[in-house]
Amino acid sequence: MSEPATAPSSTNPPLSDRVLMGPGPCNPYPEAAAALGRPMLGHLDPDFLRILDETNERLRRVWQTDNRLTFPVSATGSAGMEICLVNLIEPGDPVVVGVNGVFGGRMAEVAERCGAEVIKVEADWGQPMDSDQLLTAHPNPKIIGVVHAETSTGARTDLAELGANKGDALLLADCVTSLGGIPVDIDSWGVDLAYSGTQKCLGVAPGLSPVTVSERARGLLLERPRSWYLDLNLISSYVDGEGARAYHHTAPISMIFSLHAGLGALLEEGLEASWARHEACGKRLREGLGDLGFRLFAAEGNQLPQLTTVWVPEGAEEAAIRARLLGDYGIEIGGGLGQYAGKVWRIGCMGHTARLRNVELLLAALGQLI
Amino acid sequence: MSEPATAPSSTNPPLSDRVLMGPGPCNPYPEAAAALGRPMLGHLDPDFLRILDETNERLRRVWQTDNRLTFPVSATGSAGMEICLVNLIEPGDPVVVGVNGVFGGRMAEVAERCGAEVIKVEADWGQPMDSDQLLTAHPNPKIIGVVHAETSTGARTDLAELGANKGDALLLADCVTSLGGIPVDIDSWGVDLAYSGTQKCLGVAPGLSPVTVSERARGLLLERPRSWYLDLNLISSYVDGEGARAYHHTAPISMIFSLHAGLGALLEEGLEASWARHEACGKRLREGLGDLGFRLFAAEGNQLPQLTTVWVPEGAEEAAIRARLLGDYGIEIGGGLGQYAGKVWRIGCMGHTARLRNVELLLAALGQLI
Repeated sequence: MSEPATAPSSTNPPLSDRVLMGPGPCNPYPEAAAALGRPMLGHLDPDFLRILDETNERLRRVWQTDNRLTFPVSATGSAGMEICLVNLIEPGDPVVVGVNGVFGGRMAEVAERCGAEVIKVEADWGQPMDSDQLLTAHPNPKIIGVVHAETSTGARTDLAELGANKGDALLLADCVTSLGGIPVDIDSWGVDLAYSGTQKCLGVAPGLSPVTVSERARGLLLERPRSWYLDLNLISSYVDGEGARAYHHTAPISMIFSLHAGLGALLEEGLEASWARHEACGKRLREGLGDLGFRLFAAEGNQLPQLTTVWVPEGAEEAAIRARLLGDYGIEIGGGLGQYAGKVWRIGCMGHTARLRNVELLLAALGQLI
Repeated sequence: MSEPATAPSSTNPPLSDRVLMGPGPCNPYPEAAAALGRPMLGHLDPDFLRILDETNERLRRVWQTDNRLTFPVSATGSAGMEICLVNLIEPGDPVVVGVNGVFGGRMAEVAERCGAEVIKVEADWGQPMDSDQLLTAHPNPKIIGVVHAETSTGARTDLAELGANKGDALLLADCVTSLGGIPVDIDSWGVDLAYSGTQKCLGVAPGLSPVTVSERARGLLLERPRSWYLDLNLISSYVDGEGARAYHHTAPISMIFSLHAGLGALLEEGLEASWARHEACGKRLREGLGDLGFRLFAAEGNQLPQLTTVWVPEGAEEAAIRARLLGDYGIEIGGGLGQYAGKVWRIGCMGHTARLRNVELLLAALGQLI
């Protein structure tokens, strides 16, 4: 049996404390961080179930939906993607997926593993997806899936036009990086299935994936999907406040406490105010980066305020500068993904991190390092 | 759009604080609870990766294994069950599953959804599984799956004999309720795949599922399992400390901080001391319950110290008594599952809850309510 180099108690270095300006996690709202320490409750305790119901109600307000099946999946955002696909796809079902970055590619891959006939519609990275191309890619798709805010590029794709013209298809939206940071309007836009993550513009630790499912999509859920852990019918018999609470799996209590509190902070500020705060940070960041000579990566007019992607300056030592930002200033920014690894930086201003003070700090630090 | 009955800030009732003596979650170790509040780090931050590596090393000590692929799945215990099955089963693979309670039944269901030809070997609830029956149920099973500690009944099944005689089969063990509370000896027993949960005898909040995978099982992992989120090859390229860290999904940082600290507390005490503490609590609980006239449910000699199941006394109002325990004393115990709902209680002494003071408190309270 292996032995550790040091005993557990002897490894108590100082706690690192970062300004998290990568593509997530962000710094959580103080209320969300504090709520992680609430005394533990059982998953069938009436006091916990009240908090779960309130969490789901708060999620409905943030998603801007009346969808009854709205709750946090007990896993991270990619599981939210998988739960939306595995509960609806039967082998051979045609699914159109827009791919303009890593997460569209991931959606196509997950849909394929679920047995779908995937029709990929591609766009250049950094560009938004074109609605017409998605709508005409197949005569009768079961699902049209698209990423609202591409975390790999910082580009936003319009959802309203897709929702208005989807026909019989279900519209599935990846809102991992958008929810809480820019408007997301599930019911008005006609989105049938959407998922997010807690660690981006909701300002909570990573670990849960809020999802919302329209009544129409709910009526089409498979009776026995391939995944038991992600079986929406079984889960809904626990999370749905009006039925009896049928145990499915043990809910991640502390994380739900934290999400409950983080959503409370967000709604207390107000959705519009949160969007405006993210917008102001993104605007100042783009301006300041321009002043420093950076070129922006994502298409003009579709740049996300909460996630700004820039080309690494020619000749700059990309990894070394990120290491100095982290080591000397305690600031994390993100590298590029896939074909843009080493070529772009991804700078997030999400959740509690979306404060002008953080933007000014980063600009000052970059100014000294570039 | 729906409106909540009250604004978020106006709902601040006193925080409930329970003695958690159900089948999980337990009360977390103070060290584990405190660590949830560590400042957030990114999932690629070197300081976080060091903590993740230490967590995995601590898990190896608790599992008593050298298995390199040992880490916490980013979801709860049932996802640990699914990850062990979905990465190994191809359609039609014969899988033998022992069913002597809810969780054996769940394992059979998950294996079926993965496409296995499942051969169920049944035993009465409360009884251990018989090794010979499991070993002879099929001439050449790919997997023999069994629940080490049945959370629905409080019965323990021996694993060593199965491991010694498994032949070419892989031995899969559900250790959700056993790990940390009674001896679990992965390498000596010849267990190939095992999963647990953080919220039982590891004394941490629910939300993660520690798993361990032998080199032999690792060599048999499917290249492209049906689940992307639970794809062990993809995940191992992130959690395996010696390779480059390939991003798969955003790790649940705060929960891993907490598991790291909880395992530190457990190893500081010592595995043997933790087992002895759970044993002493279980012994005193069984004695005290006997003195109060309760009949134990699980088979003599196979009763788990960390989870004691008793018949509800004839004529007692089962739900009302549990409600009074919770309301008047702040103590949670669990009801029965499946066919034993309303008929048995499940009393846990797990993790930080496994203290004689809690046992004495519960016995005193039950003595007043029965």
